[in-house]
Amino acid sequence: MRSSLPQSAVPLGYCFSAASCGLKKRGKLDLGMISSGLPASAAAVFTTNLVQAAPLVLSREHLRASRGTMRGVVVNSGNANCSTGPDGLRASRRTAAHAAREIGSLAEEIFVCSTGVIGVPLRVEKILRALPRLAAAQRASASSFAAFTRAIMTTDTRPKWAVARCRIGGRNVRLLGCAKGAGMIHPQMAPPSALKTATMLAFVVTDAAIAPRLLQKLLAGIADRTFNAITVDGDTSTNDTLLVMANGASGCRAVNAASRDLRRFSAALEEVCESLALQIVADGEGAKRVVEIEVRGGRSEPGALQIARTIATSSLVKTALAGGDPNWGRILAAAGRAGVPFDPERVDIAMAGIPVYRRGRALPFDERAAHKKLLAKQISVVMDLRQGRALARYWTCDFTGDYVRINASYRT
Amino acid sequence: MRSSLPQSAVPLGYCFSAASCGLKKRGKLDLGMISSGLPASAAAVFTTNLVQAAPLVLSREHLRASRGTMRGVVVNSGNANCSTGPDGLRASRRTAAHAAREIGSLAEEIFVCSTGVIGVPLRVEKILRALPRLAAAQRASASSFAAFTRAIMTTDTRPKWAVARCRIGGRNVRLLGCAKGAGMIHPQMAPPSALKTATMLAFVVTDAAIAPRLLQKLLAGIADRTFNAITVDGDTSTNDTLLVMANGASGCRAVNAASRDLRRFSAALEEVCESLALQIVADGEGAKRVVEIEVRGGRSEPGALQIARTIATSSLVKTALAGGDPNWGRILAAAGRAGVPFDPERVDIAMAGIPVYRRGRALPFDERAAHKKLLAKQISVVMDLRQGRALARYWTCDFTGDYVRINASYRT
Repeated sequence: MRSSLPQSAVPLGYCFSAASCGLKKRGKLDLGMISSGLPASAAAVFTTNLVQAAPLVLSREHLRASRGTMRGVVVNSGNANCSTGPDGLRASRRTAAHAAREIGSLAEEIFVCSTGVIGVPLRVEKILRALPRLAAAQRASASSFAAFTRAIMTTDTRPKWAVARCRIGGRNVRLLGCAKGAGMIHPQMAPPSALKTATMLAFVVTDAAIAPRLLQKLLAGIADRTFNAITVDGDTSTNDTLLVMANGASGCRAVNAASRDLRRFSAALEEVCESLALQIVADGEGAKRVVEIEVRGGRSEPGALQIARTIATSSLVKTALAGGDPNWGRILAAAGRAGVPFDPERVDIAMAGIPVYRRGRALPFDERAAHKKLLAKQISVVMDLRQGRALARYWTCDFTGDYVRINASYRT
Repeated sequence: MRSSLPQSAVPLGYCFSAASCGLKKRGKLDLGMISSGLPASAAAVFTTNLVQAAPLVLSREHLRASRGTMRGVVVNSGNANCSTGPDGLRASRRTAAHAAREIGSLAEEIFVCSTGVIGVPLRVEKILRALPRLAAAQRASASSFAAFTRAIMTTDTRPKWAVARCRIGGRNVRLLGCAKGAGMIHPQMAPPSALKTATMLAFVVTDAAIAPRLLQKLLAGIADRTFNAITVDGDTSTNDTLLVMANGASGCRAVNAASRDLRRFSAALEEVCESLALQIVADGEGAKRVVEIEVRGGRSEPGALQIARTIATSSLVKTALAGGDPNWGRILAAAGRAGVPFDPERVDIAMAGIPVYRRGRALPFDERAAHKKLLAKQISVVMDLRQGRALARYWTCDFTGDYVRINASYRT
């Protein structure tokens, strides 16, 4: 973790802790907890995968029962608790009940999240045994938060976190988020009301005050422009969850709809979410670079997004990017199978700022210089459809031999 | 090439040849021709990619102009002649015109196919210079056919061909097919009338007699169950073409709709197409094994097919298969994002004949034995949705580090 998170950036009223309970090997951190001293407004989006892990079923139920008020979240790594039958749901329920007892809240005020392998029974006793010391270790410190960010990692090579601030009614409001995820990353999350459900997990806490319903409404749009617009491997997980808690501990006035406060808070929340989403792509399994796919000049945003998504998930595009190969033909071919009408003879394509294709024709360019530019850590691909004004962005990473190595033996 | 193609299996009335014209390096075969002495009924399906290479535009035009009567096909490898503007179309047109002159047919009776890199101008002079010797080398021999199968290869490691026979009206009818393709394989081909358009190329010649319209009708269904049900990397090419020619040189009576002859001929044609399609998957870039994904018990065939296709294209499923990892959780998670409703609690999954998941529960199985079975050259994955009677199959290959290696530096 970057050592630069100052204590002053930590939102007021939250505590963090981490423990090793034995789900991961060699005593690695595999259990984390966040709690809020005050009841916090909560909003969440969950994976839209038809297969949903037990903790998502439970957390959705709790969010409804508590009418969007949460006190804490318990997260384990090392086991997704998915496709584990009634025992799996019981395990999540017991986790929440024990955690609630430890911090003095209602069970329905506790969120539970799991990440790891699918289909292996969760040894919940390990979690329950560790909960008392996890609760006792709760601290408001930046270092406790740092420990939490490590406890939720699976194939991640580094923790991911982001901060933002904004002013509301003359008072400082702090936002702090963290996320995990490197593979099975293609989040398509939706609010709990929709019949929808990745394993990416992301948590944002803030000491702003905002009503649960408004927070939920805000989050849906922000999730679509950030986490739902990233991909590592095109596989949407059964466990993806993004949770935001706002406890009002800053003492600022409540953020209201249609206010300047809302725009400021929304911008700060989106800043945190976009930073976390891009950190996930950058740490994608085997990834060497982040690629922003921008499709502009579209007739509609959903159409432009569908083309951007198809390019971002193309194995041929992603392997070419691994090699720094300015192979725009693969980009055009991917766009052509997206199912969205456009005229290939009118399209422009630029890679890493170099125009390579204009209106149906290849443009001459310096292959060697282009190759060098494409080896950068962050590159862009821009396709202009020249049909209209709609624009969409998707973030992906390159597809390397290391991805295969990591995933050909994930369980063994 | 397997040395076992007997001359007696070669349909009557066809000649084959191959040449090196300089599109590929080091004097490799890169140009091939098939011609029929008699005008042949022809039917074809083309990629549904919105981006369509020049030779497809031309061949579709010729098929229409000749009302489904063809005399020959010229195929080059080493350049897809796609996204090459008006010059590209002119190149295909000149190729057809020159070939027609050489074999004494109308230009519109010639099919042109190209495969290779997208967006690089085709040096058509190389092809035109080679056409006279290509025509002069036309032979009805099995060895000429063998040379043709090599000339159309790109990243293929071996030629692919298949034969079948059937009896029509007491006479022997022969079918002989060949195909190329190892990457950018996810054919979604449709008849030329549909506004649809891969790079796999496949050619089937037969000395049966059948009207063009009936042949076309037959081919659409067969393509859907064979070539359109395979994937290597999920990327649909701009050049996919399947062409069937039937010249009647066997002297048998014409195959008529709703006859027993039709059923026999159809079965023989499907046998050739399925064999070629599976050979493509087996030779998929970097592939070590062929995996048949069967989804049964579905409510509808399109739904079952969509689930099978989503499993077959999942990077996580395909990398697990590379490692021989019985990771059924990834199979279930892929099915869950297919957009087709089913109840995960009712589903059964078997891998390589081993039941691993039944009605929402993991089944105990011997991990080591399963791993060994999954390392076979051909394996099956069966998912039973237990909803209805619909069944669909998709064929895929495992996803290995070699795929990445091949595609990270295809052009450079």
